[in-house]
Amino acid sequence: MSNRTCDRYVYMFEEGHGSWRDLLGGKGAGLAEMTRIGLPVPPGFTITTRACADYYRLGKRLPPGLREEIRAAMARLEERTGRALGDPGRPLLVSVRSGAPVSMPGMMDTILNLGLNPETVAGLASQTDAGFAYDCYRRFIQMFANVVLKMEHRRFEELLEAKKRAVRVDQDQLVPAAAWQELVEEYLALVERETGRPFPQDPWEQLERAVGAVFESWDNPRARVYRRVNRIPDDLGTAVNVQTMVFGNLGDHSATGVMFTRNPSTGEKRVYGEYLVRAQGEDVVAGLRTPQPLERMEEEMPATYRQILDVARLLEEHYRDVQDIEFTVQEGKLYVLQTRSGKRTARAAIRTAVDMVREGLITREEAIGRVDPAQVVQMLHRGVDPDFRTPPLATGLPASPGAATGKVVFDADRAEVLGAQGEAVILVRPETTPDDMHGIVQSRGILTSRGGMTCHAAIVARHMGKPCVVGCEALRIDLEAREFWVGPTRVGEGDVISMDGATGRVFAGEVPLVDPELSAEFLELLKWADEVRVLGVRANADTPEDARRAREFGAAGIGLCRTEHMFMAADRLPVVQEMIMAETEEERRAALDRLLPMQEGDFYEILRAMEGLPVTIRLLDPPLHEFLPRVEELAERVRDLRARLAASPGHWPSSGEGAVLTGEPPAGDPGVAGELARTEKLLRRARALQEANPMLGLRGCRLGILYPEVYEMQARAIFGATARLVREGVDARPEVMIPLVGIARELEIMRELVERVGRQVMEESGVTFPLVVGTMIEVPRACLTAGEIARHADFFSFGTNDLTQTTFGFSRDDAEAKFLPHYVEKKLVPENPFMTLDEHGVGRLMAMAVQEGRAVRPDLKVGICGEHGGDPASIDLCHRLGLNYVSCSPFRVPVARLAAARAAIRNREPTGGDGPGNA
Amino acid sequence: MSNRTCDRYVYMFEEGHGSWRDLLGGKGAGLAEMTRIGLPVPPGFTITTRACADYYRLGKRLPPGLREEIRAAMARLEERTGRALGDPGRPLLVSVRSGAPVSMPGMMDTILNLGLNPETVAGLASQTDAGFAYDCYRRFIQMFANVVLKMEHRRFEELLEAKKRAVRVDQDQLVPAAAWQELVEEYLALVERETGRPFPQDPWEQLERAVGAVFESWDNPRARVYRRVNRIPDDLGTAVNVQTMVFGNLGDHSATGVMFTRNPSTGEKRVYGEYLVRAQGEDVVAGLRTPQPLERMEEEMPATYRQILDVARLLEEHYRDVQDIEFTVQEGKLYVLQTRSGKRTARAAIRTAVDMVREGLITREEAIGRVDPAQVVQMLHRGVDPDFRTPPLATGLPASPGAATGKVVFDADRAEVLGAQGEAVILVRPETTPDDMHGIVQSRGILTSRGGMTCHAAIVARHMGKPCVVGCEALRIDLEAREFWVGPTRVGEGDVISMDGATGRVFAGEVPLVDPELSAEFLELLKWADEVRVLGVRANADTPEDARRAREFGAAGIGLCRTEHMFMAADRLPVVQEMIMAETEEERRAALDRLLPMQEGDFYEILRAMEGLPVTIRLLDPPLHEFLPRVEELAERVRDLRARLAASPGHWPSSGEGAVLTGEPPAGDPGVAGELARTEKLLRRARALQEANPMLGLRGCRLGILYPEVYEMQARAIFGATARLVREGVDARPEVMIPLVGIARELEIMRELVERVGRQVMEESGVTFPLVVGTMIEVPRACLTAGEIARHADFFSFGTNDLTQTTFGFSRDDAEAKFLPHYVEKKLVPENPFMTLDEHGVGRLMAMAVQEGRAVRPDLKVGICGEHGGDPASIDLCHRLGLNYVSCSPFRVPVARLAAARAAIRNREPTGGDGPGNA
Repeated sequence: MSNRTCDRYVYMFEEGHGSWRDLLGGKGAGLAEMTRIGLPVPPGFTITTRACADYYRLGKRLPPGLREEIRAAMARLEERTGRALGDPGRPLLVSVRSGAPVSMPGMMDTILNLGLNPETVAGLASQTDAGFAYDCYRRFIQMFANVVLKMEHRRFEELLEAKKRAVRVDQDQLVPAAAWQELVEEYLALVERETGRPFPQDPWEQLERAVGAVFESWDNPRARVYRRVNRIPDDLGTAVNVQTMVFGNLGDHSATGVMFTRNPSTGEKRVYGEYLVRAQGEDVVAGLRTPQPLERMEEEMPATYRQILDVARLLEEHYRDVQDIEFTVQEGKLYVLQTRSGKRTARAAIRTAVDMVREGLITREEAIGRVDPAQVVQMLHRGVDPDFRTPPLATGLPASPGAATGKVVFDADRAEVLGAQGEAVILVRPETTPDDMHGIVQSRGILTSRGGMTCHAAIVARHMGKPCVVGCEALRIDLEAREFWVGPTRVGEGDVISMDGATGRVFAGEVPLVDPELSAEFLELLKWADEVRVLGVRANADTPEDARRAREFGAAGIGLCRTEHMFMAADRLPVVQEMIMAETEEERRAALDRLLPMQEGDFYEILRAMEGLPVTIRLLDPPLHEFLPRVEELAERVRDLRARLAASPGHWPSSGEGAVLTGEPPAGDPGVAGELARTEKLLRRARALQEANPMLGLRGCRLGILYPEVYEMQARAIFGATARLVREGVDARPEVMIPLVGIARELEIMRELVERVGRQVMEESGVTFPLVVGTMIEVPRACLTAGEIARHADFFSFGTNDLTQTTFGFSRDDAEAKFLPHYVEKKLVPENPFMTLDEHGVGRLMAMAVQEGRAVRPDLKVGICGEHGGDPASIDLCHRLGLNYVSCSPFRVPVARLAAARAAIRNREPTGGDGPGNA
Repeated sequence: MSNRTCDRYVYMFEEGHGSWRDLLGGKGAGLAEMTRIGLPVPPGFTITTRACADYYRLGKRLPPGLREEIRAAMARLEERTGRALGDPGRPLLVSVRSGAPVSMPGMMDTILNLGLNPETVAGLASQTDAGFAYDCYRRFIQMFANVVLKMEHRRFEELLEAKKRAVRVDQDQLVPAAAWQELVEEYLALVERETGRPFPQDPWEQLERAVGAVFESWDNPRARVYRRVNRIPDDLGTAVNVQTMVFGNLGDHSATGVMFTRNPSTGEKRVYGEYLVRAQGEDVVAGLRTPQPLERMEEEMPATYRQILDVARLLEEHYRDVQDIEFTVQEGKLYVLQTRSGKRTARAAIRTAVDMVREGLITREEAIGRVDPAQVVQMLHRGVDPDFRTPPLATGLPASPGAATGKVVFDADRAEVLGAQGEAVILVRPETTPDDMHGIVQSRGILTSRGGMTCHAAIVARHMGKPCVVGCEALRIDLEAREFWVGPTRVGEGDVISMDGATGRVFAGEVPLVDPELSAEFLELLKWADEVRVLGVRANADTPEDARRAREFGAAGIGLCRTEHMFMAADRLPVVQEMIMAETEEERRAALDRLLPMQEGDFYEILRAMEGLPVTIRLLDPPLHEFLPRVEELAERVRDLRARLAASPGHWPSSGEGAVLTGEPPAGDPGVAGELARTEKLLRRARALQEANPMLGLRGCRLGILYPEVYEMQARAIFGATARLVREGVDARPEVMIPLVGIARELEIMRELVERVGRQVMEESGVTFPLVVGTMIEVPRACLTAGEIARHADFFSFGTNDLTQTTFGFSRDDAEAKFLPHYVEKKLVPENPFMTLDEHGVGRLMAMAVQEGRAVRPDLKVGICGEHGGDPASIDLCHRLGLNYVSCSPFRVPVARLAAARAAIRNREPTGGDGPGNA
């Protein structure tokens, strides 16, 4: 083919082939293929995408030779149809349509009825019907004027409306022929007035200019935006299809319509479509008349309907996929104008794929390839009943799917209290911060007036699988008054609202919700996926409930169990703060001794829920100040308490904010004085723990190195729970994960500590269990020295969020708030690297770590935990890197199973993974 | 030799060789070598370091065979000396001394006069002198008891003092023989009382136990500390030297002494030493008697003195280095007991090395190898006159060398004001923060009561070459009273103090200072270094003064000229703040237009000062909030202003801190109201610019991408200055450096911008100049994608401070404050990676960047700027990586030239560098 592409710009439909999408565009390839298999396609030809590229290369001029090839192709059309362009006696009319290699529906331009001018329209009128002919002509003038001459549709529609008012009809098909004729004159005058030149009436000029204009529509603003949003390369270019017109508007036995070979919403195996009698294609789109459901055609045009069913069956069998077909019926005869793979909902995609396997139409692997994992996400959450039609109060960005109903609450503290009491609450904030975590945990949904898809609320909510709508700018929140307004509507604290995170809609009051459905077909598909995939899939879960849900969704273990969330719980936080405030190791140990049974209880439940499956528990990771109130808050409290004390008689002498309070209690209000002393102490500690860049500060295993007693307590809790379970006959499989290792010796020391505690617990309890210790790989140096680190590790787990932060030198919060959206928009990065792994940078480090870690320890298990583990493109990279497993939020597990299978199929080569059963 | 090491533990001195340091230890190798070349060394043998290792391996037991080898060696000694161990008639006495492969002076143990017991001492007394014999015996008992039996010296010294009081003499040599005899009995009784056993009198037992004890002294606490501080591996072990005793205490023609073959302080070519008549070695160390200068011996023992000069000459010529020699004279006969390379000051090291080249003793390259660059640092700053002897008020950590005298000031603002008025001020703070920069700039020295060698003040001061003493814990600073106390001494604001950053000393009042001296010898040595080195050396300089100083010190260009310091200057900051506060691009451009001429003036001066040499100018790098007051400060101001306004009649309605102020000015005090509005606006902007991790936020080229007009102004200023200079006939060579690039496209966009401006300026000015644009390489991703980035770069310059931060995931400020000291102490890292490059992690990334950058662009110039560029070990790595140049603070340039030469010599292999002339 490469030769042909070099010496030809034009292919007759009968010369092309369905596989030549890059050259002929999707539409052109489809027309060629349908012609080839004998379907009733009006004859025509395709001008290639290479012609488009050359057109741009030459500064928007038709490349040499193209004009001649078009003439030659037109000559063959004239021969086939017995008509001729510009011949009033036997006028040949054509359509000129764009058709890119990748579908961009509605983005580029089309011109119908080309070839009409005062002479040919008269000829057409005499052969058919004057009304029909002038209707065609006025349509052509408007489309040509818009596409080629860049005039606005509005100007023509005003004239049409005026004409209809003048002849007192309200439907186009009732306009009398004479009026159409007058309108044509008015249109031509309008064009001449606006452009300063007469409308071009030479059909060859019309044709060449139309071809150029369609080429140029590749670069119109809406096409550019569409490509950016859908990440379509700018240099593909579009083909142009020139096709003999057939007329759905030629009398009552003519029609135009579209159909799907199966229901695109449910996947049900029945043709689904609609049609309009006496209409051309754009009438269906314009929405002026309501089309009829395709079933009606069975009564009205039974023969044509049968023909349509035949075409549908034939095309689906030929393409082995659901087809979206455009057709025209001209005086009872069916013509097929386009076929393409039909877009469908996730539900329909799954059902169709599974059905087609059962029908023997496609293989299981093909079925897996037919379902987009990203699309499946929307299915795995509750949603607003699709039958509920009331318009929303406001619409924001759909940040995390799922729907919720609850009482509005304006701060995290109140949300926590009410939520803990079992109230359904929705937290409404201008934005959220990590300080709001406790409230988010207890809320059914989160709604913010600011922020984008990657703001804090969005990320946290997606992780927790909670519905979230962000950037809902119509909300004017008044935190002091505890209310928000949308236009004139006021919603106060305690009022009930509903929200749908999949669509961004917010409703006043309660709305009907529907539960997510793991359909039988989906379960079947996932079973097939599990047979194909090489990557294991685990879940990130911090609670027994999460663990159970993960197991239901098919997780083969817990890849990340964070212990800090346990520290945040209301009953633990005071003890945790005591531990942090301790001034000696003894005081710290005393607080830790009180935390120990609580932690052990947590681990007991999680390990039991995951019986027989590995549970990777990460020891304490965040900086300690995250467990204290914020410095500003404490300083404020100290100021207030001082003011209260100063106002009371015999007050405490001013001591300077940082001064140490010693000696006798003050003479003033002893309650206030005591609280002041406590708060001042907290403030001092919080200040001492403050860091310039906390992400890179005293956290992760650095805490374990400095305060080994903290990790010791955690190890004791893990192994204590394990020992209990083993005694109870439960197969508990903890894996201890040390965070933020960048230096081999860190892991060596921490491993010694964990193993020592493990051996102690075994000795004390008299039971044995394996000691599995590994590390997060989340700073570049861990990758660069993976060989050294692997000596002390049973497993690696990539923490790609932090690894991305340190590799780029991006603080995620700051980058997403300040400059990353700009970087994505301007294509400095192909994707937000926090959503999809950066293959060149972060991926290269990961590859080094996998390779050099396994060189030292061939049985090293390597996984990934964190948001990337649920992203299909990142899962594909993980597969190629030879990881053993990915770990993601429980809700993402089915998505990851599917994505892992697709990755295995797409990259058919032996990899280092050891199968899903081995994660 | 490897065979021998496997089958022998003991070597007679005459069997060894000077090069066997690892096996025989430094002392043993020296004794062997001196024996070999015929010097008068008392006969003896060395027990190897391998025996020591085996001793530890066997749980502190003499390894099998060692005992027999020692007996055989002793038999040979007996043969040579005609004496025998334990033979009362002809008693053989020996010394047992440690001697490790690396010199650890005074850290391990020695026993003299071994072989004495009641019988042999009587024999010795009868052959020599009873006083001498019993003096020797009591010395032996004390040393053995201390080293082997772990008894305290104090117990013995108390008895000695009592005895001297009893016989009414105050000098040891006046004690009568009978009294020594009594003292011996008392010593023996003391040992038996304390240890519960009689003192071991069998000479063979004495010998074996002494050998074991010397092995064990390798692991005593002070030796362990010494090794940690000096980074000596723990597993080297020590050898043991057993040597026939010679006696410096045998009458008035005996003596013991030490000498250097040249003056160790000045390098002058004259022997330098001291000796004590009638003494044993430890008497010199003990300091009870004051030794005489060696010159005196010329009169007192002229023959011996001539012998000593001969030995000195011989040893220096043999070892081709200054020797530190221990000798003993026994009844007029000279014995040499030890020789080793003499420790010397930087000044002496330089002079000696250069002299020896002139004497033909060593080559120029050897001379370069003899001068430690780290030691040279101390020479390059002012110091307190060495003749000044007044004790300091307090001593802290010597954080940055140099000395200063000035008035005490307790805050940066006042320091800035007074300093700008020409006052010499010393800034005294508990610690410093980046907010104190403006005050530090205007101070002569910085003194803090807290912080370590790598705290903020220390780092900044070292960079600026300003004297700095930190962690001076004796200072109790009272900021409110504006005074500090050292014990009972009060120093108030305005009082004069002096400080010496090379020693950490702080003095009350003014003290005499001496200027640094780049001696003729040093200049000569640097010239030789320049001939050898491959790496170029540039300086980091932000001002014309720095640039001139850099040039004086031999910098071949500016490797880093930071533009943000120019933004900080008092006359610019308000305009910079205006620029930041701008709400539209137009407002921002207006402020930038006012900054333009100021920046152009800066660049004009610097480029002119560096005529003919390249000047790498980095465009704006720090986050914008660094140019605004801190949020807490602004919030405080807003609170105060609100309170004032509320107190005034008709006050402004409370609007909530974040509210936007609109409408009419308030009715209250219009001045206060206006200031409140301004401050609130500043606060809002400062809050908006706040970041969770500013190091990883909106800074570097991210600013240039978001606000291209800022970089545009800077490029215009650079090229405007260049054009002016070119017109004036000055060879100006700017190189524009884009900071913080991690994505190739960032550099591509910024390069386009800079080149566009450059071409505009050329067009406007009518002159031409080359456009050189490169990038900092300071995040891991820049290294990982260096091939892509190099397409747009004329040069790379490693910013290894940020690269270290991101590679490790360490925030330098936080790490050095919180956990890095612990990591260094516990050897989790071999060095502070911010002082010496981490070869395994950061170095590996650098190697990738160099290799892959040059693969794309073979002529890519690669350098390093930042603190590592002045660190000798890091310079060695840079040489091995094939960098073209290092850039460091002006004060470090001579150090770097020397270090670069040493690196070239040490790594004799062709590298990618292109010579110093090409930097």
